[in-house]
Amino acid sequence: MRLFLTVLVILAIGGSYSRAAEPKNVLLLLADDAGFEMGAYLNKFCQTPNLDALARRGLLFNNAFTSVSSCSPSRAQLLTGQASHASGMYGLHQGVHNFNVLPEVGSLPNVLREQSNGRILSGIIGKKHVGAAANFRFDFEQTEEQHSINQIGRNITRIKGYAREFLKQAKDQQRPFFLMVGFHDPHRCGHITPQFGEFCERWGSGEQGMGSIPDWKPIYYDWRNLEVPAWLPDTDVVRQELAAQYMTISRLDQGVGLLLRELEASGLADQTLVIYTSDNGPPFPGGRTNLYEHGIRSPLILSSPQKEDRHHETTAAMASLLDIYPSVLEALQLPAPNGTKFSGKSLLTVLREEPPAKESDAIFGSQSYHEVTMAYPMRMVRNRRYKLIHNLNYWADFPIDQDFYTSPTFQQILNATIHRQPLPWYRTLQQYYQRPEWELYDIKMDALERNNLADKPKYSGTLKQLRQQLYQWQVDTKDPWRCAPHAVLQEQGVFKEAPVCLTLGHEA
Amino acid sequence: MRLFLTVLVILAIGGSYSRAAEPKNVLLLLADDAGFEMGAYLNKFCQTPNLDALARRGLLFNNAFTSVSSCSPSRAQLLTGQASHASGMYGLHQGVHNFNVLPEVGSLPNVLREQSNGRILSGIIGKKHVGAAANFRFDFEQTEEQHSINQIGRNITRIKGYAREFLKQAKDQQRPFFLMVGFHDPHRCGHITPQFGEFCERWGSGEQGMGSIPDWKPIYYDWRNLEVPAWLPDTDVVRQELAAQYMTISRLDQGVGLLLRELEASGLADQTLVIYTSDNGPPFPGGRTNLYEHGIRSPLILSSPQKEDRHHETTAAMASLLDIYPSVLEALQLPAPNGTKFSGKSLLTVLREEPPAKESDAIFGSQSYHEVTMAYPMRMVRNRRYKLIHNLNYWADFPIDQDFYTSPTFQQILNATIHRQPLPWYRTLQQYYQRPEWELYDIKMDALERNNLADKPKYSGTLKQLRQQLYQWQVDTKDPWRCAPHAVLQEQGVFKEAPVCLTLGHEA
Ligand SMILES: [Ca+2]
Ligand SMILES: [Ca+2]
Ligand SMILES: [Mg+2]
Ligand SMILES: [Mg+2]
Repeated sequence: MRLFLTVLVILAIGGSYSRAAEPKNVLLLLADDAGFEMGAYLNKFCQTPNLDALARRGLLFNNAFTSVSSCSPSRAQLLTGQASHASGMYGLHQGVHNFNVLPEVGSLPNVLREQSNGRILSGIIGKKHVGAAANFRFDFEQTEEQHSINQIGRNITRIKGYAREFLKQAKDQQRPFFLMVGFHDPHRCGHITPQFGEFCERWGSGEQGMGSIPDWKPIYYDWRNLEVPAWLPDTDVVRQELAAQYMTISRLDQGVGLLLRELEASGLADQTLVIYTSDNGPPFPGGRTNLYEHGIRSPLILSSPQKEDRHHETTAAMASLLDIYPSVLEALQLPAPNGTKFSGKSLLTVLREEPPAKESDAIFGSQSYHEVTMAYPMRMVRNRRYKLIHNLNYWADFPIDQDFYTSPTFQQILNATIHRQPLPWYRTLQQYYQRPEWELYDIKMDALERNNLADKPKYSGTLKQLRQQLYQWQVDTKDPWRCAPHAVLQEQGVFKEAPVCLTLGHEA
Repeated sequence: MRLFLTVLVILAIGGSYSRAAEPKNVLLLLADDAGFEMGAYLNKFCQTPNLDALARRGLLFNNAFTSVSSCSPSRAQLLTGQASHASGMYGLHQGVHNFNVLPEVGSLPNVLREQSNGRILSGIIGKKHVGAAANFRFDFEQTEEQHSINQIGRNITRIKGYAREFLKQAKDQQRPFFLMVGFHDPHRCGHITPQFGEFCERWGSGEQGMGSIPDWKPIYYDWRNLEVPAWLPDTDVVRQELAAQYMTISRLDQGVGLLLRELEASGLADQTLVIYTSDNGPPFPGGRTNLYEHGIRSPLILSSPQKEDRHHETTAAMASLLDIYPSVLEALQLPAPNGTKFSGKSLLTVLREEPPAKESDAIFGSQSYHEVTMAYPMRMVRNRRYKLIHNLNYWADFPIDQDFYTSPTFQQILNATIHRQPLPWYRTLQQYYQRPEWELYDIKMDALERNNLADKPKYSGTLKQLRQQLYQWQVDTKDPWRCAPHAVLQEQGVFKEAPVCLTLGHEA
């Protein structure tokens, strides 16, 4: 009977579904400010048995990147398939920042509903952090709009409960689904609730006064035993921060495990593509809010239920989080709305076979704001070897966001700078603040992006080619900033057919 | 019978209305980018018989200022009573800029409806340019959301028709009203429809191919005969621009005349307070988007129907457009919602008698964006003698907006700069672009703001006092930028009870 109904449904929507084209559901698991703190990505200290198991059942991406290193813009990128400068989500959504996508922008929940005539069930559990509401209407919503962010984003027992409810609904109604689970871990919280630790690592741990999350068995780390990554100062303060972050990641990891078991239990796992990634890099200097490597490199696992897809493998394919949107559409076997111009491309082909590495492989970045007061727009192109960053407000000092500012790591850097004390860090705070308009790095030779090649005559050809490629992307994606900072965009009136950038004469 | 009904209504709302407390309606006439191009303000060339007549029937303000020199933020200021940094309308509303007030922000139409239990009829005709829609729900709306902006903002015959309709409704339903008429004149349009002239001064003029606005008799100006104000280059190009702007102002002026005649004809004029002002200064260098005098000084006329109020007088009272919101509430005899903290104060007292000039008289300015790409936040305090401007992104070159960029005036300045040709202007383009963090001017001695006193030891006391006054205003109005650019605001967690600005160590 159930098979019969399924066939009926397939016929009803015109045969665009077929058994061969499984999966028909997508579960998107999203971490908040996570980097590569997991065993599968060769972190030798942070224990993540559940994420590692997912990686074994899936394809692990070694060259995945977010196009923007900020929470709301990144989530908008995932849900709209557009760079933040195109979606309109230029910065954070909440409070005084008040950024929203442009009124006409479509999103996965809305598009899936329309393209499937309401057949697909969409859901979000955990952190949403995008708007306006009308642009992102999930059929099932349990987010910070209904709950406290810790309860819905870090209490994995509660998340599990809502996931069970959602999956039951999908199963009972025999509807394909798209479910996004937005964990709030391992986001910082020291600036708001320092009593729970810098990363809320004590919240729900069962320690005195911390409450208890039934499904979480915290993993504790001795900061003396850790290894500090090369991009951070190797100090006790940073080590203690990492220990706290890793403890928080044990909650994220166990949450992922819970959800995968819920999926198994629902009987839908063999029809469900599972994706794990993070919205932006970790909240350390050079990470979140930066287009440097640690701001944009993203963990990414695609675990396909189809036997013939790649499992327990890694891929060197260059992937952008802009590719998630078309990947979800393909997994759900839905066409995009008429007139859709994808910024990314579906990653499902990579599940089938490793694409040849091409010289032209490139990903792009676009950061404009984080907090509304942090106007430091940057644009970026990165291929397998080089990265070019265009700092549009390079005149100004690089801005620091409110929650990173109070972090022990930043406070240590700041105080050492003010008191002229030595610090085991590979750059100074003033270098971090003061950036030239153009930054060109040979990532292969210089993973820490220390040696800016933009002014080196030897690299003038590379610079020119990347500048052209970046500008073309900005044109193709209708970037309002594409003429900044030395020219003004004109695209109306006599320039309507052929928009131009006209000089401001800054150098005159 | 009509009197009886009025009395009934008064009783019905609990006696808060009385004959003595007339007026009970407000008509707000708003120009778009107009300055002091009118006879009443002693412009000897631009003919504005209708505005001059209104000035004779009212009180003319010589010291009125907008708190922000940008269209949407200024309109939001008028309608919410809050500085743009507090309302959330940090820049333009339309298109890619996509600024909206914060979700919880109240506005005149919504507040009047709530505070009067739906008795007051609110309307807007012409340019609206604010959002989100839910925050600004007028009972009667004929704006660019339903019409082309020229038809609803510059076609004064059409505007007249809608005003007649609105007034009839108010009268038939015997409801007090608040009507805002947002003229689009004398805004530029050369960047969009240059065929109509730089200010759309030919549009509807009856000239070949320009169509005809029945109620408009264009006034033509010979640019050779004009006088160029001291703040602009005295060139043929600028003269031709002024001639075009003045011609456009003849449409605005006649539109004002039409509306006042409609008000007379409706029989409601003797119960209606009429206000005329402009959202921001003229689109010339130092005008719109600037906090210099020509960006913020506003024409302002309050014409009261009450005999005992001041008529055909001028006032030296310092007034801010932030004062309009409480003035409208008072004129409509409505209390503000509980918990309202006004940024301004009602101007109706000035209608009764000239307030003594006090040393503490001051107005404030807050500009953050215009276009979303134009991040150049500025804060300002101005008393009767001095003005202090804080340029928060002083590192960067001052930004130029799209429609001003293509103007013949700016093009002439730009080309002269690039080709190193002389220009009869009192500042250079590079000076205009490059501004120090602090600008202090003795406006009385230096109306053109040429001589920055911020670094002069003699003025250190003045500087310090104004800095404190400005910062206090930012604190009082919860400015998200109040710690910028060298510190970070902390107001959560351990700082919740006592928010602080913490240093970024820029100078370390
Ligand atoms: Ca994040
Ligand atoms: Ca304007
Ligand atoms: Mg955040
Ligand atoms: Mg404008």
